[in-house]
Amino acid sequence: MNRKITFFHAPNSRSGGTLALLEELGADYELHLLNLKSGEQREAAYTAINPMGKVPAIRHGDALVTEQPAVFLYLADLYAEAGLAPAIGEPLRGPYLRWMVYYGSSFEPAIVDRSLQREPAAPSTSPYGSWEDVVHTLSAQLATGPYMLGRRFTAVDVLWGSALHWITLFKLIPETPQIRAYIDRVIMRPAMQRAAAKDAEFKAQQGG
Amino acid sequence: MNRKITFFHAPNSRSGGTLALLEELGADYELHLLNLKSGEQREAAYTAINPMGKVPAIRHGDALVTEQPAVFLYLADLYAEAGLAPAIGEPLRGPYLRWMVYYGSSFEPAIVDRSLQREPAAPSTSPYGSWEDVVHTLSAQLATGPYMLGRRFTAVDVLWGSALHWITLFKLIPETPQIRAYIDRVIMRPAMQRAAAKDAEFKAQQGG
Repeated sequence: MNRKITFFHAPNSRSGGTLALLEELGADYELHLLNLKSGEQREAAYTAINPMGKVPAIRHGDALVTEQPAVFLYLADLYAEAGLAPAIGEPLRGPYLRWMVYYGSSFEPAIVDRSLQREPAAPSTSPYGSWEDVVHTLSAQLATGPYMLGRRFTAVDVLWGSALHWITLFKLIPETPQIRAYIDRVIMRPAMQRAAAKDAEFKAQQGG
Repeated sequence: MNRKITFFHAPNSRSGGTLALLEELGADYELHLLNLKSGEQREAAYTAINPMGKVPAIRHGDALVTEQPAVFLYLADLYAEAGLAPAIGEPLRGPYLRWMVYYGSSFEPAIVDRSLQREPAAPSTSPYGSWEDVVHTLSAQLATGPYMLGRRFTAVDVLWGSALHWITLFKLIPETPQIRAYIDRVIMRPAMQRAAAKDAEFKAQQGG
């Protein structure tokens, strides 16, 4: 099987986590850069890929994959030999899926509400309990450490390490020593550093 | 491998989709019923399972899985012989992951905003474009039909069919003929009907 994928990416955006994952996986990919400032993500050529106008998206053969946790699940299974996805049948597979999906379904909605200073919806409607529940849940999970799923570094950490790095820069979550140590443990990895250097180059190509 | 799971479920709630999936898969499970009216989902015994206080959740051996799309992905792979999950390496695997994750990461946040009559966040923050984008995206996907991924019925349809059934009851999305026909195509399946009958019994056990 040809494993080369096309990666739709915007420098200095949420798709930076996927760039880092591709580096961690040693994946073969062709880059398709989007300029968010000029609004390329909302032009027809891209909304045909992702009608939500969001990055990341990937194309592999005829298959399009959007939504960050789906892109992560797909890529980490495609390049299984990198060992970043517990395989189906391994005890960590369930928690791996849980924390991937939780990121998009509960944590991001909480961050969006937080950034807009909106109250969460009523518990029967809200995808997360309260902001305090979200912070407590993350902290309890990190306490098992050093990684989200314990001793094993997985694609979940590429997602959460990249996201928390971004989110703490915007001061949307308190930068506790535990969270800071976790972010550093992830972003100091050689592949993560290579991805950051590449992203800076891509940004420069677009005029900074 | 022992495939018996424990299923944390509340009658007449969002976890009804998982009950339907278990029926479709012919899965072996032990039921753990929660009474939402008495607030059992926010008691310590359950927040130890899911700190968000949401159903569904499942336990398989020592592994806990929460978040509906993660529970679906886990179960459909665990009972792979039912054929509801395109396998890793199959062309439909990517779209399958995409539409599972999209449900929790984009569609539900749009529904929450809609139900609260809140404006979506700015495009750079929002997990979805606009409400119109969301309706249009769903409609375009259903147009390929008869199922979300085309000709093949998958666990994605159990999730979306159940959710749209629920959401149209609350009139949170326009019930177009296309959406109505899709819901009916899914909920009329024998396993879905068995699940609905069981759920009505569970509700009666809790005093209706």
